[in-house]
This record gives sequence, C-alpha cells and structure tokens, in this order.
Amino acid sequence: MITVEAHLARVLAAVEPLTRRETLPLADAAGRTLAVDLVSHLDVPPFDNSAMDGYAVRRADLRGASPEAPVTLDVVADLPAGAAEDPAIRRGQAVRIMTGAPVPSGADAVVAVEATDGGVERVRIEVEPLAGRHIRRAGEDARRGTAVLTAGTVLAPRHLAAAAAAGHAVLDVVARPRVAVAATGSELVEPGEPLAHGSIPDSNSTLLAALVADAGAEVVAAARLHDEPDDVRAWLDRLPDCDLVICSGGVSVGDHDVVRAVLGTTGEVVFEQVAMQPGRPQAFGALADGTPVFGLPGNPVAVHVSFEMFARPAILRLLGRRAPTPVPLVVGAGWRSPAGRVQVMPVAVTTQVASLVAVPAYPGGSASHLVTGLAAADGFAVVPADVTEVAVGQTVPVLLAAR
Amino acid sequence: MITVEAHLARVLAAVEPLTRRETLPLADAAGRTLAVDLVSHLDVPPFDNSAMDGYAVRRADLRGASPEAPVTLDVVADLPAGAAEDPAIRRGQAVRIMTGAPVPSGADAVVAVEATDGGVERVRIEVEPLAGRHIRRAGEDARRGTAVLTAGTVLAPRHLAAAAAAGHAVLDVVARPRVAVAATGSELVEPGEPLAHGSIPDSNSTLLAALVADAGAEVVAAARLHDEPDDVRAWLDRLPDCDLVICSGGVSVGDHDVVRAVLGTTGEVVFEQVAMQPGRPQAFGALADGTPVFGLPGNPVAVHVSFEMFARPAILRLLGRRAPTPVPLVVGAGWRSPAGRVQVMPVAVTTQVASLVAVPAYPGGSASHLVTGLAAADGFAVVPADVTEVAVGQTVPVLLAAR
Repeated sequence: MITVEAHLARVLAAVEPLTRRETLPLADAAGRTLAVDLVSHLDVPPFDNSAMDGYAVRRADLRGASPEAPVTLDVVADLPAGAAEDPAIRRGQAVRIMTGAPVPSGADAVVAVEATDGGVERVRIEVEPLAGRHIRRAGEDARRGTAVLTAGTVLAPRHLAAAAAAGHAVLDVVARPRVAVAATGSELVEPGEPLAHGSIPDSNSTLLAALVADAGAEVVAAARLHDEPDDVRAWLDRLPDCDLVICSGGVSVGDHDVVRAVLGTTGEVVFEQVAMQPGRPQAFGALADGTPVFGLPGNPVAVHVSFEMFARPAILRLLGRRAPTPVPLVVGAGWRSPAGRVQVMPVAVTTQVASLVAVPAYPGGSASHLVTGLAAADGFAVVPADVTEVAVGQTVPVLLAAR
Repeated sequence: MITVEAHLARVLAAVEPLTRRETLPLADAAGRTLAVDLVSHLDVPPFDNSAMDGYAVRRADLRGASPEAPVTLDVVADLPAGAAEDPAIRRGQAVRIMTGAPVPSGADAVVAVEATDGGVERVRIEVEPLAGRHIRRAGEDARRGTAVLTAGTVLAPRHLAAAAAAGHAVLDVVARPRVAVAATGSELVEPGEPLAHGSIPDSNSTLLAALVADAGAEVVAAARLHDEPDDVRAWLDRLPDCDLVICSGGVSVGDHDVVRAVLGTTGEVVFEQVAMQPGRPQAFGALADGTPVFGLPGNPVAVHVSFEMFARPAILRLLGRRAPTPVPLVVGAGWRSPAGRVQVMPVAVTTQVASLVAVPAYPGGSASHLVTGLAAADGFAVVPADVTEVAVGQTVPVLLAAR
C-alpha cells in the first residue's frame, strides 16, 4: 500500500504543463487560464480625472472660502466625460467637470457640485478644497508596464475587466487539455434505457465527462466499454490525439478487471493499493505513445474522490495551475474514519454564525457506491490517515467541490 | 437614502421566476438550473449486488468456519458484473461473484475472495459471514419514486451522475434568462484601441457580459453607448425580447447622465440613493414593455458590487434560485467603513490554519474606480451600516465571488 502523497507525486511527475496556447477575445476568455503575466499597456486611469461632478479649480483662488465667505469664479469651460480638451484656467476661473472627465492641467483640485450653487456661467463656492481633492491620479490603479494579472489566473469576470482597463482586447490562454474518458463495466447501460436484471445505468461516463470539463479540459472522446479486453484495446487504438486518458472500473484483481488485463501487461502502468478510503485500487501510467492514463476504481463515489485527489491535480498541472488547497472547516457532526488510510468524506457545507461547518453529506459515510447521496455533497473532507474519529467542533480540511 | 435591503426587496418584487423550460441531455446540462424535483425512476442500486469480488453463499453452510476449521463449497456458477442470471444455490454450494454483479436470490451473504483460497471449481472458506455481509441492498442509495435532486439545484457533475443513476437521460432545466447589457459613457472606447486624451478602455461591457453569463444567463445584446439620449433610446428600441436589461453609468444628476435622461422621465424607473459604499446611485424599474431594467453606477468596482448586491439576485430569481448567503470569515487585516452605509469591500480570501481569512484585496479599500485591483478580490465583505471599523480577528460576512 502506498500513501496518497506518494501516488499524487508520481502522477504530477508524469504530467508536464502544456505549451499550447490560444489567443482569445476577452468575451471568449472567461474560465480559461491566463498563459502569461499580463502587463498593463496603459496607466490606469490613463489621465488625471474627476471623481465627482463639480468644478475644477485653482486652490489659490479659494483660500478661506466658506459658507460665510463664499468665492465666486467664472466658469470658462464645460468638460463632460470623454472630453479631449485641456482648457486653460486663469486666476478667478473654474471649469465645470463631470465624473471621469480629464482634469485640466491648470487645476489642482475639484470642488463637488454639492458644495457650490451649481452655476453654469459663474459658480459660487463655499469650501477651500485640499490639494488634489476629488482628483483620481493617472496610474493610481496600475502603472503602464506593471503586471495586473499573473500567469495561471483562471479568468473570472473581474479579471477580464482588469485586462480591458489595461488596454488588452485579446488574451493568451493555455489550450484546453484534450482528455478521453471511458467507463468500463459490462453491467453499464445508457441512462434512461431499459435495464435487464444485473444491469445499471452508467453514471460514470456522465460524471467523468462533466468533471473533466469542470476542471477546464476538453472531452475529446467518451465511451462506455464492456469488460472485453478487445473492446478496450480497440477504443485506445482509435483515440484522437489527447493529453490524458481516464478510465473507471476494471482495476482490481478479478478475472474481469479489463483495464488491468489490457494495461497491466505493458509495464508502463502501475496498479497500486493507495491508503485511501474510498478509492483504494488505483492505476496510473502511460499508454504506448506516452499519453498519461488513469485507471480509477469503478464505484461512483470512488470515481469522484479519485478524480479530486489525483486526476484534477493532473489536469490543473497541464493547465499550469496548482491544485486547490483544502479549506479548514469546523466539523458540525462527527464521524468515524479508518486507521491507516486517508478518508475522503463527502460533506455538505452549511453556514453558521461563526464559520462554515462541514457535516457528512449523507448517511452511509464515504461508502463508494452511494451515487445519489453524493449529489448532496458540497465538498470532500480529507481526513488524515492517523485520524480515526472526527469530532464535532474540531476543524477538518475540505476540498470544496464544483458549485 | 434607502437601505440596501429596501432596494433589493423592490428589485426582487419586480422579478418573477421564469416559466420557460428546456429539456437537455445530461451531457449538456452542467451548470444549468434543474426546473423540477427529480424523482428516481429506479431503486438505486436496482438489485442486491456484491460489494466485493468473492463468493455468494448460504450462511447456514458456514456455521463455525474459521482458519482452523475451513469449509469447502462447490462453485456452481460464475457471475461477472452485468450478469443477468440468478443461479440456484443449494446446500454446500457457492457462486463466484464479482463486484457489482447481482447476488443470487438464494444467497444471504458474500465472502470476500481474500477470506478464501480463490478456488474456481471448489472454494475453501475460512470465515462465517454476518447476515448480508458485502451485499449492497436494492434501493439503499435511493428508492424508486423518491426525490434525488430538488428544483433549483445548479447541476454540478455529481448531480448529473445522480440523475444518470436514477435512470434519467435528459433533464428539464430552467431556460437561461435573456439579458441585455450596455455600458454608457462618451469616454469609453473598445479595449485595445488607441486612446484620445480623456478616453479610457471600456471595461464595463466586458465585466457586465461576463457577470451575466457567470450568473447563468444569456447575453442577448451588449453595447457601448455614448452619453447621447437618442443613442440610448435607439438601442432600447432595437432590443430583442429579453428578461432583463442592465446599464452602467449615467444614473447620477449631471447634465450628461444619459440613463437618467432617458429613463428618468417615464415614471417607471426610480432613481435612488442607496446607503451602500460603493454604488450609492442606483436606478431600477421597468421599460415601456415591462422589462425590468437596472441602471447601475459607472465605476467598475461599483458595477461589480451593484451586480452582486442587486442584479445577480434578480437573475437568480429569474432562474428560480435564491441568492447566495454570505459566508462568515475571519478578518485578517482591519479596515475602516463609513457610518450609516453598508460597505461592500473587495477582499482576498486566504487559508490559515483554523479558518478562511479575509483581507482587503488591494490598497485603496472599496474605492469604486480601482478596476485592476478588483482582479485581486476573491469576494466581497458586506459590512453592516452601523459598523465603522472592521478589526482583525472578528468575523465579517463575505460573498464569495465567481472563481
């Protein structure tokens, strides 16, 4: 039996970040992984601009101004947002200015309209502004040439907005890893089709394909395969170019364990007992052409858990990203954990006054076949191998699942 | 000035859950919102099946079996996964069975292969199994006719797997809300295009479109509009059918506040000062045809914050979903908050030993124009109106942002 850490280390050592890139318009880049550090093309904002609707002024004209001693200035220009002018402001003059409009170079403060009579030709001002008041300085958000986003960022709406503001219309993103998935098992039939005795709907194909897409990869092939070595060999032989292959089922030691029968003889795929519950039998290695291949166990909960612990980190590494760190959450209902194995427990996450709280997602614990119960999970608690009891009130690391 | 709660209540009262539905194959349903409670078509699992590779036995034959007193049985059948047979088991007989295969109706326990000699024609067994040992009972995961998923569930991979296991090939999901977005402002130019003095790249169009998609809606129109009332009117007149319109900018009281100029005269759109920072000026109401319309303020941080506080809840309501509950997080670095206004502070979320910790995402606090700093945020702390100081170590509610 090897540890979870040792198996993961072997997986990550066999997978290299992709060098393939795509250049996408901002509108198509949401959810993709930025391939390079993104440097601002501009000062952001590009010019000093007004934070308020009001008047650009010279402070020297407003010394001592107050409600009791207002000062009246001539309004010599009117700058809406988008104005390109830089009107001169002489002694005793002001420029009417809207939020976002460029502050005239001769002004050293903006007075908000609320502190004036709002005049159009002449304006009465009742305050003496501080230097630079209501002026947003060029470059105060980001300087031209500085990095605003780092390589590896998963592009959320806010990142796309930052890229736009920094003058970028397109982004270089990492290509989606090309991943093939197969669920093996002669008992599996298309969901929704009639079931003979002994047959069950194939939920693993759906689960694997959706998890692969959720991790940011492209599903280039998906199959349901009988426990016939020739079927599995034929599928592998016909695969399009891909970066990773993930199979479920057939990795144990039974006569009909087809993935072991096909891949276990090549010497390039190692079949292990991993000290994890669920998901003990694990296969990982390479096909003849060098493509990394996972053989995950066949029970749906074990598939999901194995994906989170080993396959998702591999896909994220292909994308140049790190695997997510588990989040420490408070335990809201205790459970038992096997000695000597890392338990990966589906948990539901609820919000309480002081913290997020994790409770087992369904009765039956981490039993690996409870696929509908799995739907109630918000994440997976990763219970260390030397822990046998998880008590209410302690904290436990949780991998939050796809929302 | 009205409260955040009052403005949100007005918004939600004006938006009804959509009744439009789509029926999608499982593979296309990820991320969509389930429209109905999903009832299992099957017992899950559909039949008693073996949890182990081993032998189906009659316990009466194995009374007192132990390593010292093994019992040998005749192996009368071999059941791989997917087998449809139900072989009879008579006294002194066993059936070889693989994981997932149907347990013969005459058997009352399964002995794991590890507790036997693994024989093919005869098997030596060294244990007396408990009743039902290693048998997964039909329906123990879910009973036919019981709900396995509830209406409103956002379909993650694990939910699709549960639906497949429950015998569903397609799912009824809520149609994507059709949303039109526009960024107003004569200073705005296409990102990446050359900038005249006074002009800035339009990040709001990108931000709004990406946020709308992130919330599960479809962007049916997106525009950048000058501060010209005729342009805004023409855009509104040409809109395709939609469920919601979201504009940014032009909602203040200046001469060039174009959204106010166009929508403020209809009587169907209310312009408010909301006790929130950033994002005080807010417009909400209905177009002439009754379509709900938001006028958000124009600064990018205020756009994002206003979207999270008001527009995302509206879109989620169209989808029949509730707005997410803020998560209480520990404060890792303190900040100031204005009295009398709810502050919505972009925060970066980090993991520490005992808890998730929230710290301001960038210097400059919740200033509403710092769009590149916004990229560093993982969420938004919602600081109540009566709080003026957020101290290290206290907890603060945080809306976690799109990942």
